[in-house]
Amino acid sequence: MQYRKKIQADDPGALLLDETLFHNANGYLGVRSNFEEGYAEGIETIRGSYINGVYDFVRMKQAEKLYGLVEEKQTMVNVADTQGIKLFLGGEEFSLFSGQILRAERILDMEKGYTGRHIIWRSPQGKEVRMDIRRVASFTRLPLFFIDYSVTALNFQGNLRIISTHRGDVKNYSNPGDPRVAAESLRHLLPVRCRTEGAASFIVSETSKSGLLVCTAVDHAVEGGRGITLSTEAYPEGAKTQIGGILEKGKTLRLLKYAVFTDSLRWEDCEEAAGQELRDAVSAGADALYRSQEKYLGEFWEGALLEIDGDEKCASAVRYNMYQLLQSAGRDDRGSIAAKGLSGEGYEGHFFWDTEMYIEPFFTLTRSAIGRNLIAYRHAALDEARKNARLLGHKQGALFPWRTIMGRECSGYFPAGTAQYHINGDVAWSVVSYYLATGDFEFIAEKGAELVFECARLWIDAGAWYRGTFQIHGVTGPDEYTCMVNNNYYTNRSAQFNLHWAVRFYHMLKNAQRLNPLAAKIDLSPREIQTFSRAEKAMYLPYDEELGINPQDDSFLSKKKWDLAGTPKEDFPLLLHYHPLHLYRHQVCKQADTVLAHFIFEDGQNKELIRRSFLYYEEITTHDSSLSTCIFSIVASKLGYREKAYRYFGDSAMLDLYDTHGNTKDGIHTANMGGTWMAIVYGFAGLRIKERGLFLNPAIPDPWQSYRFRIRYQDSLIQIGISKSTLTLTLLSGTEKHITVYGKSYTLQKTLALALRGP
Amino acid sequence: MQYRKKIQADDPGALLLDETLFHNANGYLGVRSNFEEGYAEGIETIRGSYINGVYDFVRMKQAEKLYGLVEEKQTMVNVADTQGIKLFLGGEEFSLFSGQILRAERILDMEKGYTGRHIIWRSPQGKEVRMDIRRVASFTRLPLFFIDYSVTALNFQGNLRIISTHRGDVKNYSNPGDPRVAAESLRHLLPVRCRTEGAASFIVSETSKSGLLVCTAVDHAVEGGRGITLSTEAYPEGAKTQIGGILEKGKTLRLLKYAVFTDSLRWEDCEEAAGQELRDAVSAGADALYRSQEKYLGEFWEGALLEIDGDEKCASAVRYNMYQLLQSAGRDDRGSIAAKGLSGEGYEGHFFWDTEMYIEPFFTLTRSAIGRNLIAYRHAALDEARKNARLLGHKQGALFPWRTIMGRECSGYFPAGTAQYHINGDVAWSVVSYYLATGDFEFIAEKGAELVFECARLWIDAGAWYRGTFQIHGVTGPDEYTCMVNNNYYTNRSAQFNLHWAVRFYHMLKNAQRLNPLAAKIDLSPREIQTFSRAEKAMYLPYDEELGINPQDDSFLSKKKWDLAGTPKEDFPLLLHYHPLHLYRHQVCKQADTVLAHFIFEDGQNKELIRRSFLYYEEITTHDSSLSTCIFSIVASKLGYREKAYRYFGDSAMLDLYDTHGNTKDGIHTANMGGTWMAIVYGFAGLRIKERGLFLNPAIPDPWQSYRFRIRYQDSLIQIGISKSTLTLTLLSGTEKHITVYGKSYTLQKTLALALRGP
Repeated sequence: MQYRKKIQADDPGALLLDETLFHNANGYLGVRSNFEEGYAEGIETIRGSYINGVYDFVRMKQAEKLYGLVEEKQTMVNVADTQGIKLFLGGEEFSLFSGQILRAERILDMEKGYTGRHIIWRSPQGKEVRMDIRRVASFTRLPLFFIDYSVTALNFQGNLRIISTHRGDVKNYSNPGDPRVAAESLRHLLPVRCRTEGAASFIVSETSKSGLLVCTAVDHAVEGGRGITLSTEAYPEGAKTQIGGILEKGKTLRLLKYAVFTDSLRWEDCEEAAGQELRDAVSAGADALYRSQEKYLGEFWEGALLEIDGDEKCASAVRYNMYQLLQSAGRDDRGSIAAKGLSGEGYEGHFFWDTEMYIEPFFTLTRSAIGRNLIAYRHAALDEARKNARLLGHKQGALFPWRTIMGRECSGYFPAGTAQYHINGDVAWSVVSYYLATGDFEFIAEKGAELVFECARLWIDAGAWYRGTFQIHGVTGPDEYTCMVNNNYYTNRSAQFNLHWAVRFYHMLKNAQRLNPLAAKIDLSPREIQTFSRAEKAMYLPYDEELGINPQDDSFLSKKKWDLAGTPKEDFPLLLHYHPLHLYRHQVCKQADTVLAHFIFEDGQNKELIRRSFLYYEEITTHDSSLSTCIFSIVASKLGYREKAYRYFGDSAMLDLYDTHGNTKDGIHTANMGGTWMAIVYGFAGLRIKERGLFLNPAIPDPWQSYRFRIRYQDSLIQIGISKSTLTLTLLSGTEKHITVYGKSYTLQKTLALALRGP
Repeated sequence: MQYRKKIQADDPGALLLDETLFHNANGYLGVRSNFEEGYAEGIETIRGSYINGVYDFVRMKQAEKLYGLVEEKQTMVNVADTQGIKLFLGGEEFSLFSGQILRAERILDMEKGYTGRHIIWRSPQGKEVRMDIRRVASFTRLPLFFIDYSVTALNFQGNLRIISTHRGDVKNYSNPGDPRVAAESLRHLLPVRCRTEGAASFIVSETSKSGLLVCTAVDHAVEGGRGITLSTEAYPEGAKTQIGGILEKGKTLRLLKYAVFTDSLRWEDCEEAAGQELRDAVSAGADALYRSQEKYLGEFWEGALLEIDGDEKCASAVRYNMYQLLQSAGRDDRGSIAAKGLSGEGYEGHFFWDTEMYIEPFFTLTRSAIGRNLIAYRHAALDEARKNARLLGHKQGALFPWRTIMGRECSGYFPAGTAQYHINGDVAWSVVSYYLATGDFEFIAEKGAELVFECARLWIDAGAWYRGTFQIHGVTGPDEYTCMVNNNYYTNRSAQFNLHWAVRFYHMLKNAQRLNPLAAKIDLSPREIQTFSRAEKAMYLPYDEELGINPQDDSFLSKKKWDLAGTPKEDFPLLLHYHPLHLYRHQVCKQADTVLAHFIFEDGQNKELIRRSFLYYEEITTHDSSLSTCIFSIVASKLGYREKAYRYFGDSAMLDLYDTHGNTKDGIHTANMGGTWMAIVYGFAGLRIKERGLFLNPAIPDPWQSYRFRIRYQDSLIQIGISKSTLTLTLLSGTEKHITVYGKSYTLQKTLALALRGP
């Protein structure tokens, strides 16, 4: 499982893209794959290292000041740069922008868990060296990032000098063509002290406004070479390690640069912790670290196996996406998954509904401990969500912010941000999905139910009774080309689901005698539960008799239809070319909205209605959002549109590797990556986890010979294999399970083979 | 007609308020009534002089960048300060914040057209002086502002020294408690050159970004005193005139300070023009200037007479408001009426729909030349409105900006700004109203019809046909507590009216053989006129069967009703205490919306529907906008709710003089001032000008003995007198007119007396 790519030093766009594609992350820290030695002048680079959940506050000026508008946002902070390694061969500095590249490629190994560069370079004076560089963000020691840097003299011998830097004078990225961001505002982390401890260096930095500390500690070990000297000195904003010696012809010098990242969110004394982590890592040594990295990934792929025969391009893209999810997801309740993971500064490192609806399913079914962390993050942010609800005028409940790091709203434009109340339903859905997949009732009692109750309360306060129905007004659904509407179908469905499960959990907790002290803590009464129940049953769900579909909202169908076929190609994405009011006034969708509801809340819905609805919205959806094609693929699969399903799936799978949206340089699209996996598992295989058990409606895309994947369901690990003719279910571990295939019930004891239905 | 007020030097709030209340303006320039000598340290003052239509550009950062959002606004510029006069008696400087005030009052004379201060002051050392200061913004020489400054030595004689300043180092006002506005951004006008010409001084300044020039020229004349010396010197950002001499006991020294303001919007060489204007003014002399000022006002009041017997407080408030309108309204097509006139910097000097709906009626019926200018201003801005429509995605027509100076949109928050498309209907309504009142068809052919056609085109592009009706979606009506809705009743009515008159004017122009070259210029075809007509007839107007009222928009009635009675007093105005989303989700109105439609577009509406509607909306309207109570008063009058009508009227009449909204320091509320007049003329007297003629449904508020007012209707000047028992109509000049009173037709030849209907 390797992904390799030639380095094209003469293609600045490719260089920038590859910084993202080959970044290293482990859910706690992320380091973009910048060249250690830097770039030639004028070559754009986004040099960055990030810690999940570490933020600074940034003032956000509103053009007009209205009550409650957000005036301070959070931004993910670029932390100290530990990547720098400059190499001098005699008087010549190694650089891919001088001399001659005889070979240069990047590699990502998803089984061993490293990225690397393999280079053969001839200096301007003719010295030839081989460089083998590996970089690891350790999955087992989260604070650790290390670089394994080998230089082999191919045709010469002589002096070699290395300058390894540890720099605290870092800024966040600003597009040089964009004068809107003042330079000074990008300096978020300021070194408080820099010091050395033998060859190791420590930088303690503080964020400019949020009062967080970050400590980075760097140490070095050298193997090979002759007459090696090594010295480290600190200066006010960083430290520098100089390594000198002689390299003989045919011999290799190997530098191991260990970098440890800690922060005051998670450690009481992050400097002391960094020292301890650094000593532990150095004493473990590279080989042990590689072994534990490989072991971790072996376990991961064992549970998350996904193989496709006959379509290697897709297969590797899907695995790439899954690997990136593992790199991106937070490992504790202080962080979650940013829209761009830990790979870049796009969307400022904010967490969105993406986590719950697009990524949580993958973890819930493959590595539920991570899924549980993601929910725990929301639980830890519940108090901020309660405050947010008050700010929005709600007397009860919690309202999760549309985009955030530490729990406070960061939306500058509330009609397409804060107004997306469905995020509450999304959080509730992820709790329920986690519960159904894992059966982890303990977690529900501890954290999940409180989330579901507080989200449910908000609907009661936000909604209104009108002529016998319960309606929700003035919200924005997932589709951001239509804002602030009444009775968005997805939102109302999602609220209904939330209310339903609030009632269910209440009774389950009561029966299990686990209702208190939670009910006491949040003052939850049976009377309130009755209200939930009444609102659930009376929830207004727009339906259009004439078209036989669910309108996206009360007024959607009475708008003009946007003529997508007649819109020039260069006008996409529409949001960059049309005023929001113009978009809002048309039937045009940025992404799946009602179609998403037809997947998530399919129960009790007539398939022919879903078919009409799908075909209706397909015509007016631009997929300008990366959260769209995967959902269309799933619903196309459900409806038997296999070719379409495959096409939508392919768009999703290839998005980052082929940079089809043109902005992967700013980071990967994590939600879409989750969507790719969903398009296979929920789409082609038709998997559903419901209260009544596990359901499958498998099919296979025409270009594929066969495919198989694994899921963890409650206490079992199950492999689902689908060939052109056969569905093969294998219980790899755990107890027997009831599985419904094409509507018919089976018991999976060891293995089960069933005929696949034709197209 | 004088308004007098004691000066309370120990009440900083009152001082600040009076700077607005006693400002001088003439529609071209405005000067706040700042003390010539300045204030004690720590006393807040907003020192300002403004020119109608002179603006600078200011960057407006959007929290999130979306296509088409406004990123540059215009702001009215504070121009050079010509007010400064410091007086020294021996070594003592005159100041109301030292010594002893024996008498100090401000005066506004609305027949003579000046403001003034009458002061008797005893210096710390016991010198007593009388100060009589008059200030005039000339109605007949628009560039001229002058100060007539007399000092009488009451109990001493000795050296007197005056320093009169002319300062170019001026800034716009920023609230010292508001750190959001960076100080440097307030410096909008930068002196280019300062020079003297004898005792006169000239400052030519340029705006920082909009490239406009302003020239101010100041000269002095001194009468009285002994051994007077006078010298002027310029410095880089201004000039200073020093006057010295001896003042004998009982004698008066009179200083005349002439200040002239010109700009490059209106003059090719504004410096030369200023010189000429200054020489003309000085050679005319103060007495002649006073005479022409009084003559101008005599003519104004002759046509605009409004007298109330038995309610002096109201009567003087109403006259005050009318006078302020005369001070505020632009006299050419480069300026209009700012929300705060020329009296302060509130709303940044922007023009809104206020002009068309609240102020234009007053001028149309009392001084139609000014009414015509206001429309000509919109006509001059038509090209910008066309560009605005394109930016908003419309393929045809013009869309007037919600707030502007030079014609480009300045709304920072489009849902409550740009989305108020009704401004197009408002412009069209003002054109039609002007035409009906004046019969000035020539102006329609020249400018009015083009406005009406281009506004009408926009509705066709913005609206949509849906199941046989023509609907308008995604707009905001007048009520800013409800944004971006479908089929706002007021908007649709207003569009319907616009379309109706586009068709009418088309045929009228055609019949008069005046259709070309306009139709050719804007490519208007008979086919397009047919479309206008179809849309007019099919216009969807929301109606609720159950309540028997017009809903404010499609979804208004299904929202929760806001409990106004249960809302704490300190929560008003709501917009300062509730998030917009929360407001939008409730039935709560900032101001008259459907109720405004019931006044403006009353034709064909059943009175009982209007009654139900009025009572319904009254319950949920906060009148947080100053544009509301006057409209409620008019409709209350129409429905016979006389006490209510009077109460609403009183709220409107007293708003600025009694600072009931607490923000008159930032400027007067011009729209409300027009509304006060409308509440009498359209409200109590029930006047309407329709195509079928002039209508009256007169009544009289209980506290009044009688009242009378005059209007110019076509070629006639008519006085309408209403006592407890009798309506007396007098044709003061012009030809006979048909007038309908209480639904019955009469011909007014000379005078007509009819019995007033009882309550």
